[in-house]
Amino acid sequence: MTSKYKSFEYMMHPKSVAIIGASNNPDKVGHIITQNYLDVGYSGKLYPVNINVEKGGKIIGIDAYKSILDIKEDIDLAVIAVPAKVVPKILEECGLAKVKTTIIVSGGFAEVGEINLQESLLKISNKHNFTILGPNCLGVMDPKSRVDTLFLPTFKIDRPRIGGVSFASQSGAVGSSVLDMIANEGFGLAKFISYGNAIDIDEVDILEYLEKDNDTKVIIFYIEGVKRGKEFMKAAKSTSIKKPIIVIKGGTTNAGAGAAHSHTASLAGSYEAYEAVFKQTGIIKADSLDDILDFAKIFETQPLLKGKRVAIITNGGGVGVLATDSIYNNGLIQPELADKSKKQLRESMPPIVNIKLPLDMAGDANDKRFNDALNIISNDPNVDAIMAVALFQTPGADSRVAASLIHFGTLMKKPMVVVSPGGNYTKAHKDMMESSGIPVYPSPERAARALAALLNYYEYKSKNEGKPARIKR
Amino acid sequence: MTSKYKSFEYMMHPKSVAIIGASNNPDKVGHIITQNYLDVGYSGKLYPVNINVEKGGKIIGIDAYKSILDIKEDIDLAVIAVPAKVVPKILEECGLAKVKTTIIVSGGFAEVGEINLQESLLKISNKHNFTILGPNCLGVMDPKSRVDTLFLPTFKIDRPRIGGVSFASQSGAVGSSVLDMIANEGFGLAKFISYGNAIDIDEVDILEYLEKDNDTKVIIFYIEGVKRGKEFMKAAKSTSIKKPIIVIKGGTTNAGAGAAHSHTASLAGSYEAYEAVFKQTGIIKADSLDDILDFAKIFETQPLLKGKRVAIITNGGGVGVLATDSIYNNGLIQPELADKSKKQLRESMPPIVNIKLPLDMAGDANDKRFNDALNIISNDPNVDAIMAVALFQTPGADSRVAASLIHFGTLMKKPMVVVSPGGNYTKAHKDMMESSGIPVYPSPERAARALAALLNYYEYKSKNEGKPARIKR
Repeated sequence: MTSKYKSFEYMMHPKSVAIIGASNNPDKVGHIITQNYLDVGYSGKLYPVNINVEKGGKIIGIDAYKSILDIKEDIDLAVIAVPAKVVPKILEECGLAKVKTTIIVSGGFAEVGEINLQESLLKISNKHNFTILGPNCLGVMDPKSRVDTLFLPTFKIDRPRIGGVSFASQSGAVGSSVLDMIANEGFGLAKFISYGNAIDIDEVDILEYLEKDNDTKVIIFYIEGVKRGKEFMKAAKSTSIKKPIIVIKGGTTNAGAGAAHSHTASLAGSYEAYEAVFKQTGIIKADSLDDILDFAKIFETQPLLKGKRVAIITNGGGVGVLATDSIYNNGLIQPELADKSKKQLRESMPPIVNIKLPLDMAGDANDKRFNDALNIISNDPNVDAIMAVALFQTPGADSRVAASLIHFGTLMKKPMVVVSPGGNYTKAHKDMMESSGIPVYPSPERAARALAALLNYYEYKSKNEGKPARIKR
Repeated sequence: MTSKYKSFEYMMHPKSVAIIGASNNPDKVGHIITQNYLDVGYSGKLYPVNINVEKGGKIIGIDAYKSILDIKEDIDLAVIAVPAKVVPKILEECGLAKVKTTIIVSGGFAEVGEINLQESLLKISNKHNFTILGPNCLGVMDPKSRVDTLFLPTFKIDRPRIGGVSFASQSGAVGSSVLDMIANEGFGLAKFISYGNAIDIDEVDILEYLEKDNDTKVIIFYIEGVKRGKEFMKAAKSTSIKKPIIVIKGGTTNAGAGAAHSHTASLAGSYEAYEAVFKQTGIIKADSLDDILDFAKIFETQPLLKGKRVAIITNGGGVGVLATDSIYNNGLIQPELADKSKKQLRESMPPIVNIKLPLDMAGDANDKRFNDALNIISNDPNVDAIMAVALFQTPGADSRVAASLIHFGTLMKKPMVVVSPGGNYTKAHKDMMESSGIPVYPSPERAARALAALLNYYEYKSKNEGKPARIKR
């Protein structure tokens, strides 16, 4: 275990946290951070620190301190939210107080040209032997240990439930929007790490930590630029054979790269170079924020896809047609069902249902019909995955259909995705299914892209484990 | 005006409707249709018809009839929801009763191999000189006249508000899912037409009607196959110069085409042929259900995009980077702001804000900063459109920022799109903005695709009006 690993442990499971820049003024970042620690139910010791506090003063009802040096207990983590020019002095005090690790939320460093000021920080932390996350970042979130350094009010951004997806973002903005979206999708968070200007802890350290973190099943990453290219490749290779890494790269165009440089002083590098690295290291490339969410939820909940053969069942013909197009457009195929399955389906489905894929069970399909189809097709040896189109607008579809999809989706050893476009009634059923670990998509195209990502990762993983997959075609 | 046009008028504004197959049994399609006419507040005369009704009997509290021939008043529209084999007899009675037009909701015709049965229908309607929509369809919806023949319960599918988008779908399933999504997006519906097997009224008739319909500003279409190719091209050409036609084509792959044939007995044709037709006729091609919604809402609310130059403003750096990538990936560009704008922005923005595009106004940007930026940039002659990234997770963003976006988005003569990824708090602001006519997207990529569609349509339209656009580059 590296010392950086320990730093992460102190950030994610601190016994004591000092918030430097804490305030009673609700407009101040330090106020929001302190309030959030209280709101999410952090159970360790919390020490608000503010230079202006009077002796015996309180911040949000908690005993507050003028300086971290006034605190007599050990401090695992100092969260620093003070103006940039004061940060070096604060860091020096953190060193004297022997804090284990720091998160510098404050901006105003290299991203606005203050390169010398930024470089001075690392000298201080190296001298005192502690680590820095940031500056110019949101810090970390761990729903399990209830650590939450985000300076974003809980009413503005929903907090995700506990789960298996860890998310690291160079950008706080991308970080907070995606967190908010994660909270409203049906999957949960292991760790969130916003690392901003990355003067000390960087992508490589984060990958090395998440590789070892047992709560992390899937890693998603927003990256603008990577400084330690070789080490990143090594860490990505080593990690991606164990857990999928999904990356969205900011600055893939020349103009975007320019914007990235202004943003986090990152050198975005050529996109072709990144694409080559992604390919070599098994990193799964996301082309949009939609991809990030769509891929993360299938990887968190579903077994890997071990072949191209996707069986589509549907209670709406037209969406079945679009679903069929979508699997072929994403390099997947529609198999011929086994004879046994065909016979069983013919016996159980009404005469108007044509026994072939896509299986159009008609607009009046109810849970009985879904049950029979799922039971038969999930056992068909010709099928590698099921895409179930469940349109909840139809007369026969209700929560019993959702229950049937949950039952067979959980039982079967192959991936299942559900496609349910719609409004409020559909949303209720989507939430039901997703909270039971069944990924639901608003369009066949997005479900098919996610299945393809699952298959590509399986192929990479098997090849690099020395047992190349033999994909049935 | 053709007689088909009159048929649509009778469907959309009937003074009297007979529902044949109406029932007190809530599981029956005829029950749901009758109930929906009541639920949505149809103000004309409603006549439930059922062969099993006793003299003086009622259906859902309304006087019911054994046969349409027992009704003494004129009937503008007969909605038929009885088993397929009874339909010819019912149609014959409709003819004798001199109904103006019919919608056959019932399935069980060519799509299940009953070709002769299907062909018998047209003979009857031709003899009696009325038209047929369907069979195997959902019929029509017009939120303005409160006509709603959908056999889908109102609690399962949200009904869109009144608006300018008309939607025609060969598939009932695609139709109902998209309607449900439309209702949950911020735009409204003019007419919905589900036309199923299209034995009489087809794509060509629908286009000719919607071309003339004053309530229709934008047309969206789900098509599996077109029977009258030449006439369709002619109608599409004539219509698309007046209003945009957005088409999603089912059966673009061989397997999808096979599925389409089983579904509505359509011959999907080669996708290349369709793509050529789309290009020649100015039809805007949607690649997914997401595209359909994303394109429809920008066309309904925004002026056409008359150049490639998109100015991005953002309160989050990383999403600004992704937004920049997205416009270049969609053939758009980022201009240099005019010197006057730069000067004005430098005076109004705090020093940490870099005065260039994308304009990153920083995470603490409030309505004041949005106001100033929007005011200056919307008047910049170098800018053809604005993409405003408004992240409502940030401390400074609240409903005053949404109000600012609404104010300038409504005022300016150029298109504006907003990008706001997020959860519940964001959703509330999205709804606010969309109900005021500002299209909001969950990712920059989707917003950029919509802008590109707006520009492509403008280029087609200007070329075909004999005044080719000179797009500034």
